[in-house]
Amino acid sequence: MSKIISFASDFGLNDGSVGVVKGVISRIDDSLKVNDISHGIPPQDIKYGSLLLMRAIQYIPQGVLLAVVDPGVGSDRKAIAITTDWGVMIGPDNGLLNLACATVGGAQKAYALENENWIIPHEGNTFHARDIFAPFAAGYASGQLKLEEFGPELDLEDLKQYLIPLTDITDDEIKGEVLYIDEFGNCQTNIFKQWKCSKIVKL
Amino acid sequence: MSKIISFASDFGLNDGSVGVVKGVISRIDDSLKVNDISHGIPPQDIKYGSLLLMRAIQYIPQGVLLAVVDPGVGSDRKAIAITTDWGVMIGPDNGLLNLACATVGGAQKAYALENENWIIPHEGNTFHARDIFAPFAAGYASGQLKLEEFGPELDLEDLKQYLIPLTDITDDEIKGEVLYIDEFGNCQTNIFKQWKCSKIVKL
Amino acid sequence: MSKIISFASDFGLNDGSVGVVKGVISRIDDSLKVNDISHGIPPQDIKYGSLLLMRAIQYIPQGVLLAVVDPGVGSDRKAIAITTDWGVMIGPDNGLLNLACATVGGAQKAYALENENWIIPHEGNTFHARDIFAPFAAGYASGQLKLEEFGPELDLEDLKQYLIPLTDITDDEIKGEVLYIDEFGNCQTNIFKQWKCSKIVKL
Repeated sequence: MSKIISFASDFGLNDGSVGVVKGVISRIDDSLKVNDISHGIPPQDIKYGSLLLMRAIQYIPQGVLLAVVDPGVGSDRKAIAITTDWGVMIGPDNGLLNLACATVGGAQKAYALENENWIIPHEGNTFHARDIFAPFAAGYASGQLKLEEFGPELDLEDLKQYLIPLTDITDDEIKGEVLYIDEFGNCQTNIFKQWKCSKIVKL
Repeated sequence: MSKIISFASDFGLNDGSVGVVKGVISRIDDSLKVNDISHGIPPQDIKYGSLLLMRAIQYIPQGVLLAVVDPGVGSDRKAIAITTDWGVMIGPDNGLLNLACATVGGAQKAYALENENWIIPHEGNTFHARDIFAPFAAGYASGQLKLEEFGPELDLEDLKQYLIPLTDITDDEIKGEVLYIDEFGNCQTNIFKQWKCSKIVKL
Repeated sequence: MSKIISFASDFGLNDGSVGVVKGVISRIDDSLKVNDISHGIPPQDIKYGSLLLMRAIQYIPQGVLLAVVDPGVGSDRKAIAITTDWGVMIGPDNGLLNLACATVGGAQKAYALENENWIIPHEGNTFHARDIFAPFAAGYASGQLKLEEFGPELDLEDLKQYLIPLTDITDDEIKGEVLYIDEFGNCQTNIFKQWKCSKIVKL
C-alpha cells in the first residue's frame, strides 16, 4: 500500500480545483504525498488522457492513481476503482483508465465508489474529484478504507473501454492517425516503424 | 500549528518566482510541506483571488495560508497576518483575504509583518512574497516565530475589505454579475437560485 | 547531502513529462522531495533558463539541482554534473548551468553521466531527463550513487558556456538588451543603474 497518490486531470492550474482536491487528501491523512502527473490534459479529452496515462504508468510509483477527465460528471456514469498488478486506479468509468490498465497487465477487479461514508455531500454542486474520487483515494492510500468497502464489485466486461484508433493497411498504403503531439511538436502515431509499405504513409 | 502551508498567488508558473518562494520556505524548515492552491490567478486580480480563496478555504488543511495578489507592492499597503478559527492567513492588506476569513467565522486578530529579523533585505528589488510573506509564514508554521512577534497588532476595523458586488433587485428584474468563470466555462454569479423574479435575469 | 531535488525544465505541465521524471525519482527513493522551480521555460531557450537559474539559485535549498533545457538531446552533447559550494548541478552541457555556478562561487569539478547502471535504456526514444538526468540526481541525492561513480571527470575548461550579452557603451550612448520579461511585464536588462550616459539608453 502506497503513501503516494499520483494525480492527473483536465482541471488546469488556474481556478484552484487541484489545490482543493489535494486539500481534501491532506485533511484525510496529511502524511500522504501527491505526485502530479499533469493537470493540463485538454478539457474532457479522454483520448489524450488515456494515452498520457499509458505512457506515464510505467514510471510513476506503484500504488494509487487518481485520474479525472470526466465529461459525464453528473450523468449516471459510475465512479470506479480498478485493481492491477501496478496498484489501484481510481476515476470515472469512461475508458480513461483502460490503456493504463492494459499496459501493466490488465484489470483484475473493479469496484463502484458508492460507500456513502466516504462521499462528501453537496447540494447542486458537481465536483466528483473533490467529493468522491479524492476521499476514496486518500482513504485507501492511508489504510483507513479497504477496497471491499468501496462499494459493489463490478463485472470487468461492463467497464467502458477507450480503444486506440486502428490503422487502415492495404498493400499500397497505410492510413494512420496522429494520436498525440508533445510540447516540442513531436507526433506519436498509431503506425509502427517495423511496418513496410510500398507506396506512402498518409496521415 | 500546521506543518503545511497552503500557497496561492498570481505569479504564474513560468518565471521561477513560485520555486523561489518555496525555496525560501524550505531553507527556513525543510520539513514544511507546501500545498499549491493556484498560481494562475489573473495578475493583480484581487476579486478573482478573493473568490478562489473563499471556495478553497473549506477544503484545504487548516493552519497557514500564504496568499499573494498584490498590485500595491512597493506602496505603503501593509503586509498582514489575520488569525481565524481556521488558522492564520498571511498576505497583503488589500481585501484579498477577507472573504476567506468570513467563510470560516471571521477575523479574530491581525498583525503587521514588521519584525525586521524575519524580513530579507533587498535593495531596489520588490518581491515581498520572497522577502516578507514567505519568511513569516515559514517561521510561524515551523514554530520559530510567534504571532505576537510578527509586529504591532492592528485594529480589525482598519483592514481593507473586498466586497462581493451587490445584485440590483426590483420586482421586475434582477441584475447580477458573473463573478467567476471556471476552466470548463461554468459561470458563478452573485444571484442565488432561491430568488424568484417575474421577468428576466440580466447578467 | 540534500533530500530535496530542485527541478527546472522547459517541458511545460501538460503532457505528463514532469510527472514521469518525478515518478522516476520517487521509484529510486520515495522519501526524496522535489522542489519545482519552473517548467515553463520557453522550449529550448537556454538564455531564459540560464537567467532564471541564476536568480533562483540564491534562494532554493542547497544540495541538488536538476535542470533540463536541451535542444541538443540526441546529439553528442554530454550529460554532466557540476559541483559547487551550493551543491551539485545536473543537466546537459550546453551552458544552461554556468551562470548559476558563477553565482555561487564557480564550478569546482565536473563529471560526465556515463555510468550505465544508472541509465534507463530505451530504443528509439530520446528523453534524457527521464532516462539519465533523473536517475543520477535521485541516486546521488539518496546516497546510493557517489559523484566519483557518475563517469569520467571532465576538464572545466571544456564545458560549454552561456555568456550574458555585452552592452555596447560609448560616451554618447549605451546599447543594451532586454534579457528577460517577467509575468507582470517587468524587464531585466544588462544595463546597470549606476551607469551614467549623457544621451540616451537605446534598447
